[in-house]
Amino acid sequence: MDEVDIEVVADVELDDPVLIEGLPGVGHVGKLVAEHLIEEGEGTLVRRVFSEAFPPQVTVDEDGVASLADATFHAITTEGRDLLVLTGDHQAADSRGHYRIANAFLDAADEFGVSEVYALGGVPTGELVEDHAVVGAVADDERKATLEDVGVEFRSEEPAGGIVGTSGLLVGLGGRRGFDAACLMGETSGYLVDPKSARAVLETLADLLEFDVDYEALDERADEMEDVVEQMQQMEQGPSAGGEEDLRYIG
Amino acid sequence: MDEVDIEVVADVELDDPVLIEGLPGVGHVGKLVAEHLIEEGEGTLVRRVFSEAFPPQVTVDEDGVASLADATFHAITTEGRDLLVLTGDHQAADSRGHYRIANAFLDAADEFGVSEVYALGGVPTGELVEDHAVVGAVADDERKATLEDVGVEFRSEEPAGGIVGTSGLLVGLGGRRGFDAACLMGETSGYLVDPKSARAVLETLADLLEFDVDYEALDERADEMEDVVEQMQQMEQGPSAGGEEDLRYIG
Amino acid sequence: MDEVDIEVVADVELDDPVLIEGLPGVGHVGKLVAEHLIEEGEGTLVRRVFSEAFPPQVTVDEDGVASLADATFHAITTEGRDLLVLTGDHQAADSRGHYRIANAFLDAADEFGVSEVYALGGVPTGELVEDHAVVGAVADDERKATLEDVGVEFRSEEPAGGIVGTSGLLVGLGGRRGFDAACLMGETSGYLVDPKSARAVLETLADLLEFDVDYEALDERADEMEDVVEQMQQMEQGPSAGGEEDLRYIG
Amino acid sequence: MDEVDIEVVADVELDDPVLIEGLPGVGHVGKLVAEHLIEEGEGTLVRRVFSEAFPPQVTVDEDGVASLADATFHAITTEGRDLLVLTGDHQAADSRGHYRIANAFLDAADEFGVSEVYALGGVPTGELVEDHAVVGAVADDERKATLEDVGVEFRSEEPAGGIVGTSGLLVGLGGRRGFDAACLMGETSGYLVDPKSARAVLETLADLLEFDVDYEALDERADEMEDVVEQMQQMEQGPSAGGEEDLRYIG
Repeated sequence: MDEVDIEVVADVELDDPVLIEGLPGVGHVGKLVAEHLIEEGEGTLVRRVFSEAFPPQVTVDEDGVASLADATFHAITTEGRDLLVLTGDHQAADSRGHYRIANAFLDAADEFGVSEVYALGGVPTGELVEDHAVVGAVADDERKATLEDVGVEFRSEEPAGGIVGTSGLLVGLGGRRGFDAACLMGETSGYLVDPKSARAVLETLADLLEFDVDYEALDERADEMEDVVEQMQQMEQGPSAGGEEDLRYIG
Repeated sequence: MDEVDIEVVADVELDDPVLIEGLPGVGHVGKLVAEHLIEEGEGTLVRRVFSEAFPPQVTVDEDGVASLADATFHAITTEGRDLLVLTGDHQAADSRGHYRIANAFLDAADEFGVSEVYALGGVPTGELVEDHAVVGAVADDERKATLEDVGVEFRSEEPAGGIVGTSGLLVGLGGRRGFDAACLMGETSGYLVDPKSARAVLETLADLLEFDVDYEALDERADEMEDVVEQMQQMEQGPSAGGEEDLRYIG
Repeated sequence: MDEVDIEVVADVELDDPVLIEGLPGVGHVGKLVAEHLIEEGEGTLVRRVFSEAFPPQVTVDEDGVASLADATFHAITTEGRDLLVLTGDHQAADSRGHYRIANAFLDAADEFGVSEVYALGGVPTGELVEDHAVVGAVADDERKATLEDVGVEFRSEEPAGGIVGTSGLLVGLGGRRGFDAACLMGETSGYLVDPKSARAVLETLADLLEFDVDYEALDERADEMEDVVEQMQQMEQGPSAGGEEDLRYIG
Repeated sequence: MDEVDIEVVADVELDDPVLIEGLPGVGHVGKLVAEHLIEEGEGTLVRRVFSEAFPPQVTVDEDGVASLADATFHAITTEGRDLLVLTGDHQAADSRGHYRIANAFLDAADEFGVSEVYALGGVPTGELVEDHAVVGAVADDERKATLEDVGVEFRSEEPAGGIVGTSGLLVGLGGRRGFDAACLMGETSGYLVDPKSARAVLETLADLLEFDVDYEALDERADEMEDVVEQMQQMEQGPSAGGEEDLRYIG
């Protein structure tokens, strides 16, 4: 096994596909979008990526079958652009691993003919958000206009701490390697899994890449999360208290 | 010294042996089984595995002789299948080391002609267990039937956090390399060394691989542990309190 | 991408330039000097250094453009010596990374014909400092006289804990590789960003290398910091308390 | 720079020398012996060992001269055996580094024709010790008799936690590489630098290798430490309390 090992699961021809990355992160926004796309778009598993920088573990599925820590690429054809969707459960354990895995992701994307990369994530606001703006960051200034056309906001030096992990490196390394790379981040409280923020990011992406997608499953998860939030607020406040919309007291 | 260094201690011919791994872990279940097998089966030390991913230390034996941190393979012939038993005192210090050592273990097993791998461990229940079920996880779905025949239970997405460390990798990497690999985990509280859980796993293994083994030494250790538990309960509860069987209060 | 990757941004001929390093550290003294020099000297960005030992992240600028974690070399021509100024926002994540990046920095300096290296930093005193002495450490004893001529103080075994990180290695590794290397450290409380200490170091450097520089921007930052300190003291002491000059109570 | 880099400072011919290692550790016993030997035996610095597994730092000497983190070999000729003394201020930052540096130490020793290795250290007792026994651990059982002849004690499975770091690896790796390696550990409280324990180890070594050495400087340091201990006890107990000899209350 090499440091990063890419297994070819299926050979699929894609026409100038776009890479969409959604790994675990703030509000699980990116991962929710990626999983929803794979589900709704009936994605075909094309690559599995293994790495000794991933945690040394297997996960056990509903049948008791164990599978090694990995990240996956699924191919999806839409009425718009073809998509290559990268998701998984893990990030690398150290800096060196992060860089090597991100470069391997870009290598794999390159082989499929990808020239455009969208790294998806959440940007934490610290309080409950009603309207989820989508904040962007680009490798190349020229990419901003197209993104602003579909409502992406660019804000000075935001997120303040930069973009950390695979999303950051896909834009940073991807830009240096000549990819047209951008990060799209849905506003989210930062305390909870946020399907509404994921929907906002997905709508932006669908506008941009001109594909249609059914949002029902995401909306259902959003309703479930609202119920959870309501219950948490009632537990915190007791039966008589009103419904405030600031969650800062939930650590 | 390479990253992993395998010393040939003895050359032994084995007939289609089965690899059994028992390193330190939950309830020391796997290690108790491995050590019991080596003791009862008069195992021959055939390989020592050293690695710079192991802790930089020596242990000192009863004669004052120091030996470098290692893992060992012992060969055992039984009236059933031949066994190759892997045990030791250490796990790797980081992700990379875990992967490299697990691959080296599989290389060594491969040289002995191993095609079947059983990684042994414990699955924590959080409370004292009377009947120790043996829970399984397999690299390949087809292996389940044989294991269910000897009483192994397969449970949906259990253990919940996956299987971490060498046991997980032997199944995950082993499966990818074409080994017929399974993990057998005895239910155990998770708070104490558990020879009774080890006995349950060993019985399952003996059924499966059709060998006989004397359980007396394990039973003695189980009796000793019961005395320890009783003393702990009495200390916690004072002389007048009754004997509860929940240990959750012991952290 | 190699472990350290140096991007040639511009080719500039420099005449026997001096390397000046100012990365983040105690009181941000080194970084303040480096940034001030680049600003006032209209430095030309000549090299960007990327490394998988840097954090896996991008920073987002005022236009929403993301750039990968890096360190930079700027070339500056003065009426005195030509300068090559190394700065950035990151230090390496581990020992190995520190050594490899420091060696890469020295390689880059070597290509520009650098033979003299000044690593800038702060030396913490634990209390507010009025007169900021500049303390030196040299790779080679013979370098002391020239530095003492411009007021640099050499103190026995100071700083007591040695000099850690890039500054330390540029002197330690640089000295071994034949560079004429010294560390210049401005006295500073250690609790706050210290533009006055940076000014003291910069004055010493300007004397030594015979260049002129405008200090106004540093002085303005120093005034701002004084206001901050005053406000902090008033908050701590309440309106009636007098103005002590010991900051040890600010952790 | 390689991972470990050995600088030849002087070429000295030694006649079948013995390697004596004393790096920082429990009670600084090993390091005290090594430094005392170099001082009294007028050791010649023959090798400096640098490594990217050492901390990224320089230390500053009494003249303000900075030197890179290293370990050193000094050659000493005595009326008995020739000695090669290894000491320094650092241990490696991680497992891998520990193994690589220890192997490099053994390579260097090998070049000088060393076949016998003594790794010196302390064994913590948890309380003040009057008579400092010297406890041994050997790579090879056959070495015990000679050591027992000069008073070294061998105790079952002691030290309980094994021997960690360079001392452990010199015995563990050294033994595997064919060196005649032993660890000699002076009993010491574990709370304080212990020149008396160092003297006990040094006397044993002098007996074994048949050299003479003046103990005066060690005795002076021991007296100083006794004064320190007395002052600490008085501070703890107040002026009226008696002088107990158990230091367990000093954490």
